[in-house]
Amino acid sequence: MKKTQRTTIKRVPKRANYDIQTMYDIIDEALVCSVGFNDEHGVHVIPTAHWRIDNYLYIHGASKSRMIHRVLTQSACINITLIDGLVLARAAFHHSMNYRSLNIYGQGIEVAAEEKDRVLRVFVDKITPQRAGQIRMMNEKELKATTVVGFCIDEAVAKIRTGPPVDDKEDYELSVWAGVIPMSLQSGEPIVDTTKL
Amino acid sequence: MKKTQRTTIKRVPKRANYDIQTMYDIIDEALVCSVGFNDEHGVHVIPTAHWRIDNYLYIHGASKSRMIHRVLTQSACINITLIDGLVLARAAFHHSMNYRSLNIYGQGIEVAAEEKDRVLRVFVDKITPQRAGQIRMMNEKELKATTVVGFCIDEAVAKIRTGPPVDDKEDYELSVWAGVIPMSLQSGEPIVDTTKL
Repeated sequence: MKKTQRTTIKRVPKRANYDIQTMYDIIDEALVCSVGFNDEHGVHVIPTAHWRIDNYLYIHGASKSRMIHRVLTQSACINITLIDGLVLARAAFHHSMNYRSLNIYGQGIEVAAEEKDRVLRVFVDKITPQRAGQIRMMNEKELKATTVVGFCIDEAVAKIRTGPPVDDKEDYELSVWAGVIPMSLQSGEPIVDTTKL
Repeated sequence: MKKTQRTTIKRVPKRANYDIQTMYDIIDEALVCSVGFNDEHGVHVIPTAHWRIDNYLYIHGASKSRMIHRVLTQSACINITLIDGLVLARAAFHHSMNYRSLNIYGQGIEVAAEEKDRVLRVFVDKITPQRAGQIRMMNEKELKATTVVGFCIDEAVAKIRTGPPVDDKEDYELSVWAGVIPMSLQSGEPIVDTTKL
């Protein structure tokens, strides 16, 4: 992907990555993104679930939501961050994290009413494969109350760190544990809802 | 904590929480926050590690970093999100996540040179208890290259969802699994760095 002024990484530029498949993999693995936008009180960052179809990232929200209104009328910034590990070096200065971070810039486009059901099914199936065919999908009233917004992934940049700590030469002799503690978002034992009304 | 215009939750206001200890617990558990700020190209959201001392949240960065410069000269928004579970309802519309999200608003304050070492030791010890006493802490040159920024936690709001799915009455008869899949960030087996220089 071509760099723009907004997607040029200045701090540790060797970690920048413009490969579209790398970006898709980050989007597909992550459950939530952070949406940055401005309103009359300044900047806000709001987490929300997201999904992807082809070259679009989608979010959804209440049709009356401030965030939804704002991202449809101004350029927003969406960040997705996956934490892959704690990087423990021998010197404080070289401590770091292994991570995959993605920024997407652009104004949202509202998904047309007749497309909403199809696009939302992809969302449901991302969270739990084949679930859209098992549950009650949205009725007309619910669809009307829900706005789905797509962002074309055409101005974006990933920033990625991998691997062990990198210390200054003289610090390798220090007798302190150094290495990486891998981190990942894991699921626990499902808790069934036995409510009967 | 007193509400302001920026910290008044409009969507599902019953999930809003202004209890300071609840906020501290979210900050202390999370490893990274998302910093929202504006520059001449518009809004950006950048993830970074954070820590807390008393009523201040701290971040750090290269002294020449754009983000550090911006948050010291304008009001920023910092979001922290912990994903606690996938909420699988019987109807698509009632699917949700259990989460703890915190927004802090305000302009950053630069930590004075003579305070930096003390404040950074708290950061190191947050990631790995007692590690600050074992590693080489920052030398004068490294401290000079690092800016530490504090945000007073005096304009903030948490938004929290817990518990099982809540479906419409008529949907409880649908024969589909419903419940919560707990999620949490977990550490894996440490990978020692055996590099010898």
